Amino acid sequence: MNFCSECAQPISVQVPEGDSLPRYVCEQCGTIHYRNPLLVVGCVPTWGDRILLCRRAIEPRLGYWTVPAGFLENDETTREGAARETREEACAEVEIGSAVSMTHVVHVNQVHLMYRARLVNERYAAGSESLEVALFRREDIPWEELAFPSVRFCLERYYQDLDRGTEGFHIQDVRRPGS
Amino acid sequence: MNFCSECAQPISVQVPEGDSLPRYVCEQCGTIHYRNPLLVVGCVPTWGDRILLCRRAIEPRLGYWTVPAGFLENDETTREGAARETREEACAEVEIGSAVSMTHVVHVNQVHLMYRARLVNERYAAGSESLEVALFRREDIPWEELAFPSVRFCLERYYQDLDRGTEGFHIQDVRRPGS
Repeated sequence: MNFCSECAQPISVQVPEGDSLPRYVCEQCGTIHYRNPLLVVGCVPTWGDRILLCRRAIEPRLGYWTVPAGFLENDETTREGAARETREEACAEVEIGSAVSMTHVVHVNQVHLMYRARLVNERYAAGSESLEVALFRREDIPWEELAFPSVRFCLERYYQDLDRGTEGFHIQDVRRPGS
Repeated sequence: MNFCSECAQPISVQVPEGDSLPRYVCEQCGTIHYRNPLLVVGCVPTWGDRILLCRRAIEPRLGYWTVPAGFLENDETTREGAARETREEACAEVEIGSAVSMTHVVHVNQVHLMYRARLVNERYAAGSESLEVALFRREDIPWEELAFPSVRFCLERYYQDLDRGTEGFHIQDVRRPGS
């Protein structure tokens, strides 16, 4: 951030009065430009005993497998966002269920919220951000080729809960190794 | 948003190629300026059978009661954020427990995530954003003077779970009445 998005003057970094952290501040118009973590929403779409995964056609982690997920937009609920991402990435319609996991990737300031979901029919296809989309049985999940820690965590917890007959909500904080 | 924060040129609103929603786009340098929902983190701090509430010294809802809560900052976990807000607003130290509720206030693009928490001692005081801070027994909670729907929801679900001997996670979406 170099310039104020309100008045186009150069931005400086300073701790505003009454605050405790450095912020991007416009000395001209006084606007404080906050930077905050972003929400990513996704789901574990199931069809019977199989789970729908997408192989990423985009960076980061191109070629790796993920559940449908993406940045939450303004004016949509987290469940609507998870269903929209499934539509976009897997051309599939889901009914969203309970929340299964929240993985906070602290060093990239992303909070990944994942829901359980049920495909409403067996129709699916690769969306523009996917190389391929497929249903996996538990024993066929490509654990070594999953794209992100949040994907592994939500699938692990999903199956763990399934074995126990529960639907828990599980929280994980991930920091950069060594930080 | 009027100007590009990268290059200070005027911003236009358009749907970028490959996107489906209008965004703030800089035609000069190509930067897309996304706007996304913000996370608010807070907790229900308990001391024995009492709950710590803060009476707000700031707008919105000045004079109304809330649990300690505020915007999640970059580089802190959601639990660290909830503990920090408790320190700032109630001068109190807490151990954060399980998540109790998530209220998505869709029309203001805020997701309020609330945790169960335990005060580590009985020390508390009004921080700069609070008029007063007090411990309330269940029968004394000022239900009619709570600041936000997310505060009511997390307290209701907290007590409901307490009665059942469970610690569930509860999700609520709030839209502007009539929208």
